[in-house]
Amino acid sequence: MYTAAVQDLIDELGRLPGIGPKSAQRIAFHLLSVSKDDALRLAHSITVAKERVSWCRRCFNIAEVQAGLHPGSGLAQHAASEPAGDAHTVLCDICRDARRDPKVICVVEESRDVVAMEKTREFRGLYHVLGGAISPIDGIGPDKLRVRELIARISPEGVEEVILATNPNIEGEATALYLTKLLEHLPLKVTQLASGLPVGGDLEYADELTLGRALEGRRTIGG
Amino acid sequence: MYTAAVQDLIDELGRLPGIGPKSAQRIAFHLLSVSKDDALRLAHSITVAKERVSWCRRCFNIAEVQAGLHPGSGLAQHAASEPAGDAHTVLCDICRDARRDPKVICVVEESRDVVAMEKTREFRGLYHVLGGAISPIDGIGPDKLRVRELIARISPEGVEEVILATNPNIEGEATALYLTKLLEHLPLKVTQLASGLPVGGDLEYADELTLGRALEGRRTIGG
Repeated sequence: MYTAAVQDLIDELGRLPGIGPKSAQRIAFHLLSVSKDDALRLAHSITVAKERVSWCRRCFNIAEVQAGLHPGSGLAQHAASEPAGDAHTVLCDICRDARRDPKVICVVEESRDVVAMEKTREFRGLYHVLGGAISPIDGIGPDKLRVRELIARISPEGVEEVILATNPNIEGEATALYLTKLLEHLPLKVTQLASGLPVGGDLEYADELTLGRALEGRRTIGG
Repeated sequence: MYTAAVQDLIDELGRLPGIGPKSAQRIAFHLLSVSKDDALRLAHSITVAKERVSWCRRCFNIAEVQAGLHPGSGLAQHAASEPAGDAHTVLCDICRDARRDPKVICVVEESRDVVAMEKTREFRGLYHVLGGAISPIDGIGPDKLRVRELIARISPEGVEEVILATNPNIEGEATALYLTKLLEHLPLKVTQLASGLPVGGDLEYADELTLGRALEGRRTIGG
């Protein structure tokens, strides 16, 4: 129905997560109708991101290669599938920041979770990005996550506390449980983010699991 | 929170229609995690589409410049804002097809409506793409649409029927009404797509406006 270039564009847009065929068509026509500069800015930002953005060789958070530097081999393909000893040359902003406390590592599933944690301004330690959560249905076992790399950091970096901040869902909980077992023989404290009522939430509308967790994790505030 | 390249990518994605900040972030991280080839294919398809796709100088449907040909000035910016006599060099596949009947013009709002009409395989005439519908709230008057270009086609092309196929909503109906008034003094037939019950629909669930239109447009089938 469409000419080749338009169909290609719709197909490529349709491969993005959360973009169905109708949305892809709508976005394609939007890109065709805006000025050439506006559309090419998107194309350019994709190219630049793929050239500059790599994974931190220490915590696997996203890290940007400084303009002018050669991106190195750390950039390519799925970082998760690369051997841990690969020639990653990049450190992320957080790992480079000398004011951060290297004795506390917060383990998260994805880079975007680092952003969520940073927004709290409550955490001053370092991170470790697993690259997902254990999910047998999707064929993701601990070997597909950066678990080995986490264990390898503990002793050389003198880590004293690992905070498990995986998502409070089945996969995240399974991952936290797995890591707890794995870390229990090491001389460090393992903690997990509290589950409970969201601030500003309504007791009446809380699901029973969340309310159960809130009750289980209740704190003494007086008496 | 993000490094410059990632933030740029999220910002650019967030400018697309129907993509909120969360979706933009999700798509950006998806693009960062897929292979470089996959991500650059999207960037490339945007670039190619903007280079090749132009607007038909006759009906303003999307038209593709043949590879190797110079795209010409027809490609740039908002075609709607270009003067009608501009050096458009491209004709769309439909206007180039000698088997189509040039005496019947179907007027639609957007290029994607042409695709919808073509899918019916019922229409063998030509099109005219207005580039939108009259919408005073959005500041879109008839002068922002390709109405002048439509009027200019009627006499030289020997048009005998104009089918108004604007959307059956307030803006589309207003546009159809405006065009009906404008065309009524010309020696041609003006028709409009029928409104009524969608095929496969349920009388019970039809809204009263649609059902009212279906009643109004009822056809004699016997007696």
